Amino acid sequence: MSTEEVAKKVVELTNKQAWYEAVDALYADDVVSVEAYSMGGGSPETRGKEGVRGKVDWWVNAMEVHSFTAHGPFVAHDRFVVQYDADVSDKKTKERRKLSEVGVYTVKDGKIVREEFLPRVD
Amino acid sequence: MSTEEVAKKVVELTNKQAWYEAVDALYADDVVSVEAYSMGGGSPETRGKEGVRGKVDWWVNAMEVHSFTAHGPFVAHDRFVVQYDADVSDKKTKERRKLSEVGVYTVKDGKIVREEFLPRVD
Repeated sequence: MSTEEVAKKVVELTNKQAWYEAVDALYADDVVSVEAYSMGGGSPETRGKEGVRGKVDWWVNAMEVHSFTAHGPFVAHDRFVVQYDADVSDKKTKERRKLSEVGVYTVKDGKIVREEFLPRVD
Repeated sequence: MSTEEVAKKVVELTNKQAWYEAVDALYADDVVSVEAYSMGGGSPETRGKEGVRGKVDWWVNAMEVHSFTAHGPFVAHDRFVVQYDADVSDKKTKERRKLSEVGVYTVKDGKIVREEFLPRVD
């Protein structure tokens, strides 16, 4: 797949909240996934498709998703960006909040080899 | 300046259309600027602050800007993203069009060392 095809697939699968399908179909085995902040004091970097699948496990278990919308994609060369707006509740604390962030993705040989998440700053 | 401070300054100066002030204040001398497409068959990459100032010269001479809005910024680590929506006319052809793109910026030692522009794909 071209960068644009991968990008459009990310938007399509995110809007369906098909997180596992996205990881399985679009991610390279040695993908690097970088959050803005580390969770639990570890590294903000997760390495490998299994690690990313673990992040999806965490997300699905922790969050009730009221809405999740992907805007874009924005595409050039081997890079694409998707902007996300979400409305979620923490299943444990019941705290509800809105998330706004972008994902910056790098594609190699038709697979995502790097993703970085950048929260909106106001 | 921190990545976040540089990012907020880009948003502020873009919304004022203060293009030269942005280049002078925020860009490293050896900045690399990457467009989605090359203009006139050359490389999509421009190297150096003087080169970026040349792109601003081109933009200011070629385009009548009806509106130019920066959304964000989105910030993490040494990277930030700004989303742009613009309504412009080509001064020569009078063709009016809307532009939607993101800029992905990398900051080092308080200066922008790399910028990449990714147009929206629909």
